[in-house]
Amino acid sequence: MSLLDNGSSEIINPDTYFQTNTPPRTLGENENRVKEFVNKHNEAGRRIVLITSGGTTVPLENSTVRFIDNFSAGTRGATSAEYFLEMGYAVIFMHRQFSLQPYSRHYSHSKNCFLDFMELKSDGSIGVNSKYAPKMKAVLEKYQEFKKNETLLFLDFVTVADYLFLLRSVTRIMSALKEHAMYYLAAAVSDFFIPAQKMPQHKIQSDGGLTLTMDQVPKFLKPMVTNWVPCGFIVSFKLETDPALLVDKSRHALTRYGHQIVIANLLAIRKREVILITRDSEFQIKLTEDEIAENIEIESRIIPELTKRHDEWIRNADHVDM
Amino acid sequence: MSLLDNGSSEIINPDTYFQTNTPPRTLGENENRVKEFVNKHNEAGRRIVLITSGGTTVPLENSTVRFIDNFSAGTRGATSAEYFLEMGYAVIFMHRQFSLQPYSRHYSHSKNCFLDFMELKSDGSIGVNSKYAPKMKAVLEKYQEFKKNETLLFLDFVTVADYLFLLRSVTRIMSALKEHAMYYLAAAVSDFFIPAQKMPQHKIQSDGGLTLTMDQVPKFLKPMVTNWVPCGFIVSFKLETDPALLVDKSRHALTRYGHQIVIANLLAIRKREVILITRDSEFQIKLTEDEIAENIEIESRIIPELTKRHDEWIRNADHVDM
Repeated sequence: MSLLDNGSSEIINPDTYFQTNTPPRTLGENENRVKEFVNKHNEAGRRIVLITSGGTTVPLENSTVRFIDNFSAGTRGATSAEYFLEMGYAVIFMHRQFSLQPYSRHYSHSKNCFLDFMELKSDGSIGVNSKYAPKMKAVLEKYQEFKKNETLLFLDFVTVADYLFLLRSVTRIMSALKEHAMYYLAAAVSDFFIPAQKMPQHKIQSDGGLTLTMDQVPKFLKPMVTNWVPCGFIVSFKLETDPALLVDKSRHALTRYGHQIVIANLLAIRKREVILITRDSEFQIKLTEDEIAENIEIESRIIPELTKRHDEWIRNADHVDM
Repeated sequence: MSLLDNGSSEIINPDTYFQTNTPPRTLGENENRVKEFVNKHNEAGRRIVLITSGGTTVPLENSTVRFIDNFSAGTRGATSAEYFLEMGYAVIFMHRQFSLQPYSRHYSHSKNCFLDFMELKSDGSIGVNSKYAPKMKAVLEKYQEFKKNETLLFLDFVTVADYLFLLRSVTRIMSALKEHAMYYLAAAVSDFFIPAQKMPQHKIQSDGGLTLTMDQVPKFLKPMVTNWVPCGFIVSFKLETDPALLVDKSRHALTRYGHQIVIANLLAIRKREVILITRDSEFQIKLTEDEIAENIEIESRIIPELTKRHDEWIRNADHVDM
């Protein structure tokens, strides 16, 4: 027999979550890296965007063999990072370990193994197959440029706990940037988790069926908007598979959390159509058949639109300040 | 509140599983590729090993956003494949999509992005950084050799259903090889699943907690040993986190399924110590501190040992035939 039910367990608040879960070991070190990055670009007058990308996991065991994962290769986040860099932003790329990354995404998770791009030359050296060399050169040039400028910072996470502790730390540091920071929350964050103290120490044995009862992960957009970065420009994503729910649920999120934009997308068509939803508007971005045929990426439309709205956000904040 | 309990739901038999679940769309096409590969190497008198590698997933929704995954980067399978090729085997590498692969494993899932190995040369061309070129050349030479010889066939899976249908098809085709085929089952296969017909169509909504009740995945080693490849040399893996259970559970598996070898390993030390367990022996393979310091891979010890035992298996079968 198999059942799948929403239970009615109590939802803990974010403070309780942080008090009862363990921060990742690398948190202090990552905080230092972020402080340095933020100071540097703040002094240079450069805007910074935090991009979260890829799915978080929920371990089912303390010595983890099994976990619940959220479907996300990290394509949206990795692709968007490149366009934000093009628009002059410094990018903090907070991503699931081994998910797609800007630039290298063109050569990973592909049908071809990376070695298929390489060849042994007649002089005994190793090089890039001439068929692939021009594109790879263009990608490498961009990658090296942003690496040299230090406008791209990588942070990684695996579990939902790693993600939440890191998100709180990074946003608190970035709050010094006020309106000049954008938060682009593209990661697929788990909704349910098993608290560490209630988890079995060892691998679950497989004799018979299995019943898992999980708690809801607290909604972190609320404290983020209210306390962590009250002046930031915050963009969240709503991914659904059922079109009937999409717009209503997105608007509900804006009302509930008080942030600026929800990018609504359906799993099946997310690479060619999204809707930017604010409290009083809906703006559809949709690739034409020609654009799809030319491999235009929808993020090349989304990011300039968001940048424009971020400009307005900063201008309006300046007026308030005067 | 959170609970984690083994239930007592009935275990369906493998036949029922195949009747009530949907085969992957690519099954027919993959069967043809395997037939061609098996015929070719059988005619050449070459032994074939089927390696399964990486973890299977269990979707929680029909339009999948969430799934349960098993921890496995595919390191054991990908590394072992290289040593089997070195020993003269043709390898069917049946792996989780995007998990590690032989040869390219040296450059993926690493701290370095693949682009960090490349450089722009002074003449404007793109090449491999001289620091990395010698090793990459050696890896590429091996990769191209096995590609040219067509001794390496890739098949991929994502869900546990993909895996099981593919395993049944491939092993049935390989059964023609009798004692000359080895089956090296390194994949981390899910123990629990939600049958498709009981799964919600759309993304589970996150209001409140969640209770999942799952059925046990039937144990496929039994029909594999008894019906699919009765003459094959079958090696399975037992991964545990609790040392107290390891040997007993491995021996129990041998008794229950009737195959030849269990490679027992503990999650924490699996890269430096394993035990090869047969019905009447235990053989420990353990790297020395010096070997660990020299980056010796434990698979370079495991595969020759298995090959020796496979020799014996074939010799004994020949005696029986006479």
